[in-house]
Amino acid sequence: MAELLVVGSVALDSVETPSGSVDEALGGSATYFSAAASLLTPVRVVAVVGEDFPQEHLDTLRERGISLEGLQRAPGRTFRWSGRYVDDLNQAVTLDTQLNVFETFDPELPDSYKDTPFVFLANLHPALQLKVLEQTSGEAFTGADTMNFWIEGERELLEEVFRRVRCVMVNEAEALEFSGESNIFRAVRVIEELGPEYIVIKRGEYGAVLWHRGEVFFIPAFPLEEVIDPTGAGDTFAGGLFGYLAACEGHRMEDLRRGLMVGSVMASYNVEDFSLGRLLSITREDIIMRAGHFEKMIHIGNGGLVI
Amino acid sequence: MAELLVVGSVALDSVETPSGSVDEALGGSATYFSAAASLLTPVRVVAVVGEDFPQEHLDTLRERGISLEGLQRAPGRTFRWSGRYVDDLNQAVTLDTQLNVFETFDPELPDSYKDTPFVFLANLHPALQLKVLEQTSGEAFTGADTMNFWIEGERELLEEVFRRVRCVMVNEAEALEFSGESNIFRAVRVIEELGPEYIVIKRGEYGAVLWHRGEVFFIPAFPLEEVIDPTGAGDTFAGGLFGYLAACEGHRMEDLRRGLMVGSVMASYNVEDFSLGRLLSITREDIIMRAGHFEKMIHIGNGGLVI
Repeated sequence: MAELLVVGSVALDSVETPSGSVDEALGGSATYFSAAASLLTPVRVVAVVGEDFPQEHLDTLRERGISLEGLQRAPGRTFRWSGRYVDDLNQAVTLDTQLNVFETFDPELPDSYKDTPFVFLANLHPALQLKVLEQTSGEAFTGADTMNFWIEGERELLEEVFRRVRCVMVNEAEALEFSGESNIFRAVRVIEELGPEYIVIKRGEYGAVLWHRGEVFFIPAFPLEEVIDPTGAGDTFAGGLFGYLAACEGHRMEDLRRGLMVGSVMASYNVEDFSLGRLLSITREDIIMRAGHFEKMIHIGNGGLVI
Repeated sequence: MAELLVVGSVALDSVETPSGSVDEALGGSATYFSAAASLLTPVRVVAVVGEDFPQEHLDTLRERGISLEGLQRAPGRTFRWSGRYVDDLNQAVTLDTQLNVFETFDPELPDSYKDTPFVFLANLHPALQLKVLEQTSGEAFTGADTMNFWIEGERELLEEVFRRVRCVMVNEAEALEFSGESNIFRAVRVIEELGPEYIVIKRGEYGAVLWHRGEVFFIPAFPLEEVIDPTGAGDTFAGGLFGYLAACEGHRMEDLRRGLMVGSVMASYNVEDFSLGRLLSITREDIIMRAGHFEKMIHIGNGGLVI
């Protein structure tokens, strides 16, 4: 097992879905990511919360074995997001975003974090993502996510991030927007030209595609008959992937294929409840069991074509 | 190899996509289906064309070894469809539909077709689908497609079709509409309760899902950087699946898994050109080669999880 560092947001989310709602529940990209990854490997979090951040949430994360040495507590209020899922559980309607202390977040890595061998930059201003990269070892296996806001507003810095990380992990719509292409595999080529070895395209309920130097691997989303709250599914998926890579201390194509399966399984648990309700109640054995079922659903069988 | 019967439309399609256009080109569900399936097994077509149907198209199908004994030539004009794909290659905008001789189509199976062991009912009025079923052997492995128009207008007859076939094969949107569910796996359960052993949900560029008595299998769409014309992809997919089943004379879950891979490969060729341009130029070896590449893209590898 190797250490895994994540930089991102810790937030208080108010979410409404057809199944119900929560008010100021624990959320944020770094939270979902680390809750998932910490089932598999030691996780270090760099993020910021305000003075109002409930102690119980800190306790929750610490009980999970997550290192919070890099979690800053700043004067002011914690980042808040509120959103609603109406008909389409794949797409939240943002009702309100209050960046609060996240607006002036300046990620500083404790010295003890600087040689972390696996590093994930969750969605964040690309200038801050670059600043984190400068504080980490050039040997680290690095990944980055982003969002449409930075694609539109900080294009050059974002390109620099994509040039410097080894794995780009974005939504299908983001990849299309970034590339200006209408076809996802041409979009992947545009990103690939910047340099990342691995590109993971997240496709919501349709799973994800992994691209590595001309090799492709598809992972579906684990089938669920009921989704309670899709918030954090993408971050959980990333946490499952990177948690798996750090746990097995590998980043070959075969490691990423298995890691995507783990990420997909983690995300499937996450959406079964609001906030981190489900993610915090499962064990490594649950992951292994569901992954075992899942593997049968993607396995075509050992025979060849009979034609 | 066993015989395969398809009942559906033979049409003249005028199609416009971002890559170009064709005018009154050979199309129709039975055409795409049989062009795909005939690469693998002997195919029999039951359909209708008008007096104006070009002889060259008949020659094309015959050269492919397709039996046209069940193809009726009726007084009047051939079924014509015209459509346009604008931004979304997954969704055609229908510009014009002239049913012509298809409006009064009355499928009569030649005696020599009645014991065909594999039967596919392409999208057609469910009353006609039922009429075909009555003319076929109860032993046949049967499949049926449909469309939103019949879901909305001929619900009871369509339910009867789903009760009587062994494989229902519909688009994701159709399954959701039919079931009134917003989740595709709950939708599958609603269809399953009517009785079909197998349910295949087509998801366009995201591939398909197969459901069989609680077992699930996912097949992605074969990745393409350029799609010229998606018309007929679903019928080609169905033709690849049923062609494979008939060719290997099997309909176990493992046969359907391989068959879906073949269907996906066939559909990927089909969309590389307008009309049947590409489908008529490929060989069985092309299918086997692309299927070989494809299998690597869905194979997670032989090791287990290292956690």
